[in-house]
Amino acid sequence: MVKSKTWILIKHFDGLPKDSDFKLKVEELPEPKDGEVLLEAAFLSVDPYMRPFSRVRMNEGDVMIGTQVAKVIQSKNPAFPVGSHVVARCGWRTHSVSDGTDLTLVMSDWPQDVSLSLALGAVGMPGMTALYGIEEVLGLQKGETLLVNAAAGAVGSVVGQIAKIKGCKVVGSAGSDAKVAFLKELGFDETFNYKTIGSLDEALKQASPDGYDCFFDNVGGHFSATALQHMKTFGRIAICGGISLYNDTTPQMGPYPQIPMIFKQLKMEGFIQSRWEHKHPESSKRLMGWLKEGKLMSREHLTKGFENMPAAFIGILQGENIGKAIVMV
Amino acid sequence: MVKSKTWILIKHFDGLPKDSDFKLKVEELPEPKDGEVLLEAAFLSVDPYMRPFSRVRMNEGDVMIGTQVAKVIQSKNPAFPVGSHVVARCGWRTHSVSDGTDLTLVMSDWPQDVSLSLALGAVGMPGMTALYGIEEVLGLQKGETLLVNAAAGAVGSVVGQIAKIKGCKVVGSAGSDAKVAFLKELGFDETFNYKTIGSLDEALKQASPDGYDCFFDNVGGHFSATALQHMKTFGRIAICGGISLYNDTTPQMGPYPQIPMIFKQLKMEGFIQSRWEHKHPESSKRLMGWLKEGKLMSREHLTKGFENMPAAFIGILQGENIGKAIVMV
Repeated sequence: MVKSKTWILIKHFDGLPKDSDFKLKVEELPEPKDGEVLLEAAFLSVDPYMRPFSRVRMNEGDVMIGTQVAKVIQSKNPAFPVGSHVVARCGWRTHSVSDGTDLTLVMSDWPQDVSLSLALGAVGMPGMTALYGIEEVLGLQKGETLLVNAAAGAVGSVVGQIAKIKGCKVVGSAGSDAKVAFLKELGFDETFNYKTIGSLDEALKQASPDGYDCFFDNVGGHFSATALQHMKTFGRIAICGGISLYNDTTPQMGPYPQIPMIFKQLKMEGFIQSRWEHKHPESSKRLMGWLKEGKLMSREHLTKGFENMPAAFIGILQGENIGKAIVMV
Repeated sequence: MVKSKTWILIKHFDGLPKDSDFKLKVEELPEPKDGEVLLEAAFLSVDPYMRPFSRVRMNEGDVMIGTQVAKVIQSKNPAFPVGSHVVARCGWRTHSVSDGTDLTLVMSDWPQDVSLSLALGAVGMPGMTALYGIEEVLGLQKGETLLVNAAAGAVGSVVGQIAKIKGCKVVGSAGSDAKVAFLKELGFDETFNYKTIGSLDEALKQASPDGYDCFFDNVGGHFSATALQHMKTFGRIAICGGISLYNDTTPQMGPYPQIPMIFKQLKMEGFIQSRWEHKHPESSKRLMGWLKEGKLMSREHLTKGFENMPAAFIGILQGENIGKAIVMV
């Protein structure tokens, strides 16, 4: 009998999540039946989306939603042999029994010298989010200027690098000088620390006096309303996240967007990467290709210990991470 | 020597335009030179767009921007013979001299029984705005549900009728019981007076409990923020106007749109009809075709007398018109 540690949401978040909203629980797992496998988590992902999705996808008492890289340690399913690694959408658990429907095998030719944790980062969901936002939503073209905020995060850091691969000018905003230094390492053309600049308006103007063709928005709220004023005619905005809004207890207010959207004929679209799930296998190969060629760098913000999952999660909502936040069991 | 009356913007609007912002001026026009024509206005258009565009396209002292149907009364340009009618983008003037670059001939087979003023309405700019918003921006499909506000206006009334032609369910909002009665005449499926309903949220829910595939937005602000919550997944929003915002002296504030846009993967696009200018000839033919078949009804809100142009313009910004507001010289 295998015991699994799990993190339970015992109270819906109100504002910034607190330690007391979570409870560690030990469950005894049944033996896998025919068609099932037993998994042991190696790396777990904490992502900003968990904050808003907790409201719509979870009830109090549920195991926290989330994705992990796990090793198959028992198998009664020939598709997932013992020793293979999978990306499992099974929540915050050290062990789980799965019938395979929520599993994706890590690509068979995963290079030895690349950490499997990247299947949760630059070669996984955040990498594909960046790719689909750029290609499917923005239709970013060579020579255009792209703005990305939360640019040192798991998604933003990949966005900027893909835009560079595509021959664009990239302007990135982040919330600390260390993050801005990281963006420079990644090859961003213009960068600023939005917390220390005097005026966001001035910083956006200075970074691209002609304005922006595309804006990959991870932040929402005040930043987005300001950036809207700096878009070029026919500018496109991909709304990927709204981390400045997730912990609101009452909605933040800002100027309505209609007038600048009409005058500049702007397009704005919210998206979730699962819309292009059919492209995931080909997309992860492309991302891995760029990684191996040295065109895509990945940085991780590692937290050790399953018991630290809530702290790691609360940390990303406060901007503590540079790159992808990962918990190593 | 011909004298032209013109309306001058003497002071940029601050809030709702006032009579004292305008001044009537009489100009002496030169004789038309080779390639030029002399025009006499028959019908002039007043449109909401003039309010926001006055800020970006005009200086104090300029003639008010606008379009008219005019008759050619002298011609030294064979493309525009004496007696022909043109749509002229020459502003608020009774007479003008033009080199033809700002003129479009009224279609040669314009039916005798259709007022030429419709070249400023259902078969003109507002009609084409409705058509492009539906076809180019929303991509409205048969069987979908469309929401339109300011639905009894020049654009909104055509939007609803085209959506009916396309086999859609149409929900329309307007600001008086007489306007709502007009929408029912036009065949709208669900209608309400937004000024007298208790809750916009409830009215939108009741009119389409499953939500909306498409939203043609002429109003902006609070209405739009509320409607956003009622869009279906992958809903599309065409931002055509923001009449609730045009007279703001300080920008109105509302909840930021990012979170609903992400969760429902919504698309929102601002547009101006001139983007599809190359389609205007074919589009006006289609609109005229629907009109002749009785599928498209047109109603006009007529004001007599060039001297009443400011009053007619202020009137539309206050919602006085049902259908297209036209000033007859």
